[in-house]
Amino acid sequence: MLEAYAARYRHDLVDAVIPFWLRHSLDREYGGYFTCLDRDGSIYDTRKYVWLQGRAVWMFARLYNELERRQEYLDAAALGVDFLRRHARDEQGRLFFSLTREGTPHFFQRKPYAAVFYQLGLLEYARATGDQGYLDEAEELFWHIVAWIRDPELLGRPTLQGQAPLSNLANLLVVGMMAHDLVRQVADPRYVAVVRETLAGVARHYDAERQVFREHVALDGRDLTALPEGRLFNPGHAIETAWIVLHLLELAPSAEHRSMALTALAGSLERGWDDRYGGLFYFVDLAGRPPLQLEATMKLWWPHAEAIYACVLAATLTGEQRWHDWLARVDAYTYRHFVDPEYGEWFGYCDRQGELALTSKGGNYKGCFHVPRALLFSVQAIERANRQPDSRDE
Amino acid sequence: MLEAYAARYRHDLVDAVIPFWLRHSLDREYGGYFTCLDRDGSIYDTRKYVWLQGRAVWMFARLYNELERRQEYLDAAALGVDFLRRHARDEQGRLFFSLTREGTPHFFQRKPYAAVFYQLGLLEYARATGDQGYLDEAEELFWHIVAWIRDPELLGRPTLQGQAPLSNLANLLVVGMMAHDLVRQVADPRYVAVVRETLAGVARHYDAERQVFREHVALDGRDLTALPEGRLFNPGHAIETAWIVLHLLELAPSAEHRSMALTALAGSLERGWDDRYGGLFYFVDLAGRPPLQLEATMKLWWPHAEAIYACVLAATLTGEQRWHDWLARVDAYTYRHFVDPEYGEWFGYCDRQGELALTSKGGNYKGCFHVPRALLFSVQAIERANRQPDSRDE
Repeated sequence: MLEAYAARYRHDLVDAVIPFWLRHSLDREYGGYFTCLDRDGSIYDTRKYVWLQGRAVWMFARLYNELERRQEYLDAAALGVDFLRRHARDEQGRLFFSLTREGTPHFFQRKPYAAVFYQLGLLEYARATGDQGYLDEAEELFWHIVAWIRDPELLGRPTLQGQAPLSNLANLLVVGMMAHDLVRQVADPRYVAVVRETLAGVARHYDAERQVFREHVALDGRDLTALPEGRLFNPGHAIETAWIVLHLLELAPSAEHRSMALTALAGSLERGWDDRYGGLFYFVDLAGRPPLQLEATMKLWWPHAEAIYACVLAATLTGEQRWHDWLARVDAYTYRHFVDPEYGEWFGYCDRQGELALTSKGGNYKGCFHVPRALLFSVQAIERANRQPDSRDE
Repeated sequence: MLEAYAARYRHDLVDAVIPFWLRHSLDREYGGYFTCLDRDGSIYDTRKYVWLQGRAVWMFARLYNELERRQEYLDAAALGVDFLRRHARDEQGRLFFSLTREGTPHFFQRKPYAAVFYQLGLLEYARATGDQGYLDEAEELFWHIVAWIRDPELLGRPTLQGQAPLSNLANLLVVGMMAHDLVRQVADPRYVAVVRETLAGVARHYDAERQVFREHVALDGRDLTALPEGRLFNPGHAIETAWIVLHLLELAPSAEHRSMALTALAGSLERGWDDRYGGLFYFVDLAGRPPLQLEATMKLWWPHAEAIYACVLAATLTGEQRWHDWLARVDAYTYRHFVDPEYGEWFGYCDRQGELALTSKGGNYKGCFHVPRALLFSVQAIERANRQPDSRDE
């Protein structure tokens, strides 16, 4: 049954999604990628958004490393990584959020994520080329990012007295992902230790009663549910967390964490799903209060991409019917609302009722990343399971 | 015909909107206002958001100054202005974006608007009380804000090489509004000069071909339409600009600017209106490209509040039928989708189709401001026109 998904996802990836980005996104004149692309790939903003530059480097290099060693993929990755190396970092080594088409700094965001995605891109590109220089920069940047997350003042964000000392799920995950990928290339026990710390940190975000991961919990264990951020549930993010935990467990196996990840995956799908119109909400307040985010009820492409892969992975790991059922449900919603059969790649933004809100295929937060990653990972998980049918739980 | 609107708006203001805020928003224990209020007024976040604290001070003081000299309004204004005086400014005199319930700093935003709304609150409160101390602080803060807008590095936002030197409509307007209100209390020709500069600045944002105000134009006259921000049209904001210009013209009359404001008002209503589902869009790309804002097609309460008052004002100034037609259209949409007859005050956020997206009456960007301001101003304009029927154009 999963084979049919694998065949369709492979077809979508190879014949529709990757060609869309290869055809429209590469800036062969200045380097880097255009990501603000309308439905047909036409460019509506030539700026280079660094989160998405790093993500596309990672994606193209990963395709080269794991899908097919096509020179075209490696060249596409090189176009981005070299642009970022030339332009993305300031004098203190921090990363800009956006650059002009030519590479001149445009905006600095007081967050670590531009650095995170550049780091992941460097790492995957180093793996593709064996070039130690990229790997060295990835290691150097990793420890900077850890420091920036620990002390946001280094990124220009003052720590104020009235802030609760928060653990932020996003920060845990990105550090865990970088460490996970570092382990593959660098024999340094510190990275495995970071993976273990990440798992322990994620476990603090697990709400056993509601069976979801909360976005924020207090570092000191205090109850934060009087604050909107303490009640915040981001279904796509919680679902992504579940599969990332399952990946991290390859390096630090734990039956308890595995059970937590699968229970949270089911809980997040249940609580995140809109029973009225279908699809996964963007933000949910766990106490049923109004979220502060005005776009909370919108349906975005990426939670659905994350959910597809998470269900595929859970199905291949456990063989349980419930994951097949959820996969069928999420897949049907996704292919009805987001997938564009005419020009390739998915649309990104629908309203609650599933009507398209924007015609764009990419923007300042959507690029060559979530869709091809979910499709590639899903194909790989299904093919791996077919090769090793005995690895299942049953 | 306008009298029926005035009666309904006065009723809504006095019997539903103000009571909602007086009943649920005042924090008599620590001072300041709760603004994160659900439909029935129940509090879902006790933090104090400084934009909204300043706006509510202004609103309560304005009600006291111009609607009715009720001690309750003045006390409500005092509760906020004194809380802000104690807690809102940092050591450099800049304003925090949010504070805890008790007044401890929670977040600093690299924007001048928290200061703007505090300044307007100080000014209106000084007018209510005649207390020179508040007026002095308002004057001092005014010149700080002008400096912060001129040099955002003072607010911690680095000016980067790749940024186009932009004129931002919001910044022009807030400076013009503060100067307009300062003129009433301070005999300093510099404030009238600022009003004139504001009018000249706004005129640079006027797109005569499309008959709207653009959010951003280049300070050096360069064409910015290759950038999303250069193509950005915010209908509610353009409509608000039109009536603010009409107010500023009281201090610096100009037939040309008056004609610009009225033409832009009509153009903004036309271009901002959703012909399919009704209501005003939040953001529109003037070239029909996808906006970067994922919430672009949502319908928010405040553009509709601005449109109601702008149509009322234009109708009373010109007597033209077109403004009555637009008022009827906007008013009908607003009272069908936003007004809550059960608990008072308006809902804030609908999706494109007009379905309620959030049940909240207030949040971190919605408080006691747009709705009562639009209702009060509309009632005042209609009553003024009735007293002076000959002031019309015809």
